[in-house]
Amino acid sequence: MQDSFAQKKQSILKEISINGPENLDASPKGTIDEHCIPIINLINSHRDMVTTSSCSGRVSVYLEGTQNKLVSKGNEGKWIFVTHDTSNLENWYKSIDFQYVHEYPTSSYDARSILYKFEALILHVKCRDQATANKLYSVAMNCGFRESGIGSNYNVAIRTSIKLDVPVGYLGDGDIYRCFVTEDYLKYITNVSFDRFRENFKKLDQLYLAIEKGIINSEKKSLGDEADDSNHKSEKGKEWESIEERRARMKQEGLKRKEELRKAKEATL
Amino acid sequence: MQDSFAQKKQSILKEISINGPENLDASPKGTIDEHCIPIINLINSHRDMVTTSSCSGRVSVYLEGTQNKLVSKGNEGKWIFVTHDTSNLENWYKSIDFQYVHEYPTSSYDARSILYKFEALILHVKCRDQATANKLYSVAMNCGFRESGIGSNYNVAIRTSIKLDVPVGYLGDGDIYRCFVTEDYLKYITNVSFDRFRENFKKLDQLYLAIEKGIINSEKKSLGDEADDSNHKSEKGKEWESIEERRARMKQEGLKRKEELRKAKEATL
Repeated sequence: MQDSFAQKKQSILKEISINGPENLDASPKGTIDEHCIPIINLINSHRDMVTTSSCSGRVSVYLEGTQNKLVSKGNEGKWIFVTHDTSNLENWYKSIDFQYVHEYPTSSYDARSILYKFEALILHVKCRDQATANKLYSVAMNCGFRESGIGSNYNVAIRTSIKLDVPVGYLGDGDIYRCFVTEDYLKYITNVSFDRFRENFKKLDQLYLAIEKGIINSEKKSLGDEADDSNHKSEKGKEWESIEERRARMKQEGLKRKEELRKAKEATL
Repeated sequence: MQDSFAQKKQSILKEISINGPENLDASPKGTIDEHCIPIINLINSHRDMVTTSSCSGRVSVYLEGTQNKLVSKGNEGKWIFVTHDTSNLENWYKSIDFQYVHEYPTSSYDARSILYKFEALILHVKCRDQATANKLYSVAMNCGFRESGIGSNYNVAIRTSIKLDVPVGYLGDGDIYRCFVTEDYLKYITNVSFDRFRENFKKLDQLYLAIEKGIINSEKKSLGDEADDSNHKSEKGKEWESIEERRARMKQEGLKRKEELRKAKEATL
């Protein structure tokens, strides 16, 4: 018989795999970011943790909605551009029909703003108990994810403060995207975003290693070899695999999934 | 005999009053923001909570340091302008010696960036136990402070996502502040910040009322009149006071402190 946490975990993992791989958050992308797959697999390999939503970091250009703009998505809020990767970031503004102007609304309430945002990695992890949540929280904090916190029901949010939030324009008459910064400025903040992405992925790697060392491996040591065997069986009940083997397998699985994603993407074009 | 939480709380409150009123965080201001005083007093009136640091929201213009720029203050990082209030926000850029240019560094690593930031209210509250931390966390979340979280030792961080983070320039040769956005753009993001401040203070008021209703008053009801008397005595052991009386007293104390701050400020000019 499975306990209630294990049941919940199984149902979350099942949903992820059915949705192939559908993300559980309300992001415009709707799938798990490829960059998150290794750390998601690492976390889910631990019997007391399961990831519930994730974003590996992204650049987005967002047209604010018509209501309650600052605190929620509002009505008709719309992503003009989104990427979770650096590969299609360069020159993104060339494909948007911007009208470059030198006029400004008098306040942010006068028109629907267009905001350029860089948002860093965010991971939500449901833990079995307070002890596990505390451990994950302190590993993340020590790794520089200083805006992390534990929510209700042992849900840990892992957050950092690397960001950009830049008003670049507003919606003009005739639904025209009016841009009041220059194309050179857009190019500059795009370059800054490449740096932010680099920093972000470095921190993602550090977090992977810190969770591996501080939680997965340290429990292996404290449990001793025999007791630990169960922890290192993969979920399909395969035989024991070493940390290195597991990591290699997860990377392999991640690459495979990435390839599937690429194909699925191509098929929809 | 005081329990250990009460001792810690007393020592924190003593430190605040000795430093007259010195803030406990590392902000450039070094004192408690006047806007936070009512909510700090409200929270500290509860026997199971004490505020450890606070910022009521601010606009800052920050020159990045020379090392590890994105993740920490780095060496020689410097605030060019800071305000926690809207009263001296207008035309702030007129008093900075900006050189307006059309040149950009090739990346954010090539030069020390100058960033314009709006940061919203943040409050850190140490709670006596998990139950109190959970209650405060869920009141804050329900109030729209969606980036709140519980840290170690029942420390609750109350955060929202209202923000601006805008690269506006860099440090040029001869330590000149080179600004690659126009003065009109600085004026615009300043106007946006007025809107952000308004939204921020509205949320601060909502949080005050939600804590009062969801924690302070609801416990009053559940404890009943007699048991509740102790909760409503002020810390100096005065007689019972009603919610309204307490709130009026706190506002009065806040205004008095504000006046003292103003005088202290004038004396140092």
